[in-house]
Amino acid sequence: MTAPRYDVLGIGNAIVDVIARADDDFLVAQNMQKGGMALIDEARAQAIYDAMGPAVEISGGSAANTIVGLASFGARAAFVGKVKNDELGRIFAHDIRKAGVDFDTRPAADGPSTARCYIMVTPDGERTMNTYLGAAQNLHPADLDEAAIAASAIVYLEGYLWDPKDAKDAFLKAAAVAHGAGRMVALTLSDSFCVDRYRSEFIALLRDGVVDLLFANEAELKSLYETSDFDAGVAALRNDAKLAAVTRSEKGCVVVSRNGVEAVPAAPLDNLVDTTGAGDLFAAGFLFGLARNRDHVTAGRLGALAAAEVIQHLGARPEGSLKDLAGQRGLPA
Amino acid sequence: MTAPRYDVLGIGNAIVDVIARADDDFLVAQNMQKGGMALIDEARAQAIYDAMGPAVEISGGSAANTIVGLASFGARAAFVGKVKNDELGRIFAHDIRKAGVDFDTRPAADGPSTARCYIMVTPDGERTMNTYLGAAQNLHPADLDEAAIAASAIVYLEGYLWDPKDAKDAFLKAAAVAHGAGRMVALTLSDSFCVDRYRSEFIALLRDGVVDLLFANEAELKSLYETSDFDAGVAALRNDAKLAAVTRSEKGCVVVSRNGVEAVPAAPLDNLVDTTGAGDLFAAGFLFGLARNRDHVTAGRLGALAAAEVIQHLGARPEGSLKDLAGQRGLPA
Repeated sequence: MTAPRYDVLGIGNAIVDVIARADDDFLVAQNMQKGGMALIDEARAQAIYDAMGPAVEISGGSAANTIVGLASFGARAAFVGKVKNDELGRIFAHDIRKAGVDFDTRPAADGPSTARCYIMVTPDGERTMNTYLGAAQNLHPADLDEAAIAASAIVYLEGYLWDPKDAKDAFLKAAAVAHGAGRMVALTLSDSFCVDRYRSEFIALLRDGVVDLLFANEAELKSLYETSDFDAGVAALRNDAKLAAVTRSEKGCVVVSRNGVEAVPAAPLDNLVDTTGAGDLFAAGFLFGLARNRDHVTAGRLGALAAAEVIQHLGARPEGSLKDLAGQRGLPA
Repeated sequence: MTAPRYDVLGIGNAIVDVIARADDDFLVAQNMQKGGMALIDEARAQAIYDAMGPAVEISGGSAANTIVGLASFGARAAFVGKVKNDELGRIFAHDIRKAGVDFDTRPAADGPSTARCYIMVTPDGERTMNTYLGAAQNLHPADLDEAAIAASAIVYLEGYLWDPKDAKDAFLKAAAVAHGAGRMVALTLSDSFCVDRYRSEFIALLRDGVVDLLFANEAELKSLYETSDFDAGVAALRNDAKLAAVTRSEKGCVVVSRNGVEAVPAAPLDNLVDTTGAGDLFAAGFLFGLARNRDHVTAGRLGALAAAEVIQHLGARPEGSLKDLAGQRGLPA
């Protein structure tokens, strides 16, 4: 096995976030499930945009945010995802490349426009998401650079890829290529509603060894094993997953492996502004720790640090250098 | 004179801001004049965008920011400015309308794309701007709704309109229509380099009574009268302007009229993040005070309050309700 070219290569939906503040009444009036991610069509996207307040546009996408976080820690990182060659697609490509990420997926020349996620941030900092997948759903196995995947220590995949058929095929191909090269495959469950759509398939990915490392939050874990008991979910996960990190918001996270369960506290917060990207950035820190051969608790602390940074401002990408932040907090980076 | 339909109608360049953090070395390497606004062509816009870091997109434009601030105070406000019917143009239109502003200027169907301002925010919070005017420069006198102008208590114009020939003609037509209806005409000098380009014309606008109320910052005032002495600038302004408000950053502002000069302190700050929009939002508060028949010092305090809000976050539009903020601070709104 040759030395990896990338610490982590991520594959996900390439999305520009359209973020506005909203109150709970707006969510109710719009029939939005608070805290969730709903897939929407173009007509609904237009209706939501017409109804929502003044917004800011910031590049997003779950796995893309994670990969940008990894680059911010100083990791060598690449991203695969589909935009259209339109204004938002060029914005997405600019932002991820200038964050230090290799991004070489060819944009679509025609077809649906670049994906947008309409995010309502309520006064409690919670985010509620509505995603128009657009061009992102046309990510195809042929978009994968097999050599790049084989040359990545970890391939990181988002559960949201399971929604579009071609993207799911790309997911499975990437996992096969990675394992063929002796690399690690990581998956984030993305969202409890996403888990609800694909529960048995996601469990099979763990049991069949397609996925070596799982990221989930508490709600996703409970949805995965259809339990309201966190400890029961963790016990089930220990049987199925080689390694998993389960985030619990202000309660920190637990790292679950065949050897046991280790708890890591959350990082302190001054001001919760917008929870968008908390899980994505936790994954960035944790993956960075693994890529640098740190122990699980240190990896968890790096994850907690990155998550805390991103929820203290609007948008799901870090505003400053996570490498510098880790250094200031005495964490290895 | 009938009761006005709008408290303030603003005319300016319709621009989407593309905002990134940068250090001083970047400004030097890119030959950017720190704190200024440079007009750039499309090739330079592309070169700057290729060089600058990950960005966020937030609707901007000097007079547009002011008008959004007025709406946030609860004023009836309208904006006139030209976008193209492209993605950024639709973003601009959405954001200003959802801020409560009437915006009915027909977008261009072809020609250059919607204007962008590439803004570098340095660690000291100072912003350095590079504007590609694009579709904005095609604002034409025919785009004006004369009835709306005649029905506005105050027409607010930005000095930047003096750059494109047609926009300048629109400016002069708007001022004539407003005065024909017995309304007030206000002008912001926009930028000391803009003043440098049109000094004698701007002074003539004051002396000829085309402009009733002038907004300037200290640098613009000094540029206008080619003096390094602030008091000399104020004395000259007293001779030329019926009413003027001159902002001085942390030193607050002075309100200059034929009757005298009144100083108003700046509002307290917790955390300076991005000075973009400070002058625009000062003008919003001051104009709101005038529209509500407040005295000059109260108007100045409303301006200071709005300026302080906008420089404590990224972007040049208020994030919360200025009406609520004024209420919390015991100011009339």
